Amino acid sequence: MGSGDDAAVVEAGGALSVVSTDMVVEGVHFRLREGWQTPAEVGRSAMVAALSDLAAMGARPGEAYVSLGLPSGFSQEQALELVAAADAVAADCSSAVLGGDVVAAPALIVSVTVLGWADRAEQLARRSGAAPGDLVGVTGRLGAPGALLAVREGHAEVGEDELAELKRSASHGPRLDEGRALAGAGVSAMIDVSDGLAADAGHLARAGGVQLTLRLADLPVAAGVTEVAERLDLTPGELTAASGEEYELCFCAPPDAREAVERAAGVTWIGEVGAGPAEALLLGGGGEVVRVEGFEHRW
Amino acid sequence: MGSGDDAAVVEAGGALSVVSTDMVVEGVHFRLREGWQTPAEVGRSAMVAALSDLAAMGARPGEAYVSLGLPSGFSQEQALELVAAADAVAADCSSAVLGGDVVAAPALIVSVTVLGWADRAEQLARRSGAAPGDLVGVTGRLGAPGALLAVREGHAEVGEDELAELKRSASHGPRLDEGRALAGAGVSAMIDVSDGLAADAGHLARAGGVQLTLRLADLPVAAGVTEVAERLDLTPGELTAASGEEYELCFCAPPDAREAVERAAGVTWIGEVGAGPAEALLLGGGGEVVRVEGFEHRW
Repeated sequence: MGSGDDAAVVEAGGALSVVSTDMVVEGVHFRLREGWQTPAEVGRSAMVAALSDLAAMGARPGEAYVSLGLPSGFSQEQALELVAAADAVAADCSSAVLGGDVVAAPALIVSVTVLGWADRAEQLARRSGAAPGDLVGVTGRLGAPGALLAVREGHAEVGEDELAELKRSASHGPRLDEGRALAGAGVSAMIDVSDGLAADAGHLARAGGVQLTLRLADLPVAAGVTEVAERLDLTPGELTAASGEEYELCFCAPPDAREAVERAAGVTWIGEVGAGPAEALLLGGGGEVVRVEGFEHRW
Repeated sequence: MGSGDDAAVVEAGGALSVVSTDMVVEGVHFRLREGWQTPAEVGRSAMVAALSDLAAMGARPGEAYVSLGLPSGFSQEQALELVAAADAVAADCSSAVLGGDVVAAPALIVSVTVLGWADRAEQLARRSGAAPGDLVGVTGRLGAPGALLAVREGHAEVGEDELAELKRSASHGPRLDEGRALAGAGVSAMIDVSDGLAADAGHLARAGGVQLTLRLADLPVAAGVTEVAERLDLTPGELTAASGEEYELCFCAPPDAREAVERAAGVTWIGEVGAGPAEALLLGGGGEVVRVEGFEHRW
């Protein structure tokens, strides 16, 4: 059924519905006034974040719903740009924006709800499930969003070409195909890297009651990140482990699933699961434990 | 699957998913500071509004998702009160709050998304579909929310007992059972009365390309509304037709469905559908056309 009714109607895409909802707020999650992000970039990011949650579960994407709170002075044209950019991300993932709500608000608010589908619970990955002896892996290359933030906040300077490269690295879509393939390959636990690899590995550790140990030197670093890290007096691994809004997938897998995982997606093995306290430890080049919490305050 | 994962997972409740999402904003849709509404009332209203959209479609309610933008000074206790009240409404309707998001915001923002289910598209009612010759009906008794608003804004005074009665009348749940029964009884079009009967009948008229004629004297008026209308120098019908956030259902039905509709729910017949311009006309006691747009500015 088309829009214009009180609710949107779509065919169920499986026996299980998987629902994720995310809200972002101007001045908290993004800043329009300083010109850091355009309305289109805000819409794009909000949709990537929501669909990335489905990717982390290994769900098939269904339809998306976008509600907007619009401040005075935010034009209808800007609102349409925002929704069009969100819809473009959705369309790239065989999804679509099917409805929503538009209201007045004191700041720009974007709330995105996405439906996903699966046939059986066993097809889905969860945050819990990691077991001692599992390997820890990650998709893609990380660090560009954190490096970009440092540049935007004036803590590091880069040339135009480097900036363009960082932006390109930071603006990939949600890893939905990889998420489904990894869930099918038998990962024991999975999460999307939205809070930063250190924090999200911590979520996997606590959900599974296990200790994750990550080797900072093994993190797959995006082009341009090493240069920015140097200017911040950080190792590339430190900057990368603290970099949020990555939307790559971090997962654990038993050793016998290793080959299936490597066939499923481009992954890098970055650590192991042990039976220690339920936390994520980051190891530096000399095997020492490194803390990256609060590194984001440097930029 | 329980919460703690990136997304919530529930069994699909039918072959069709029906999704509605609503956002409300402090200072725009409600006011906390003047003490008009408590956090619990805000949560309750937001959930009623969202589920009411499912009622208007005749869908079975599924799970609900509540995202909150919290201003500084809004306590965790208040946030829990808000969500508990929303969840209580959901529980009364065999629904439940299953997930959501919590972020910082410059004002209290509540975004509710509800999933509903149906087996076949023919089970659902739409806004379009009214045909000349149909009757127009409404569930319940209307007017209390508009009367309450007039009292709160200082345009009319009522005693404590009257105020309590108006509040009781204004605080019913979404008409989900009635919506499903009416859709099953063969209504041709249906909408929930959220903008006010005059405005929502106009939505049915435009969606169907037909003219709705409503008799103001026949509107079912809640107890206490007549007294407030008198103090505003309005007829009870005028106040009632302009009163929003009613969450009763307004529908059209062919004459041969009349008996089935009357068996399905407690309804009042308030008008007819004709072939004139696609608009809703309100007729006063002498058959004259009455306009209620802007009446809400009197209170």
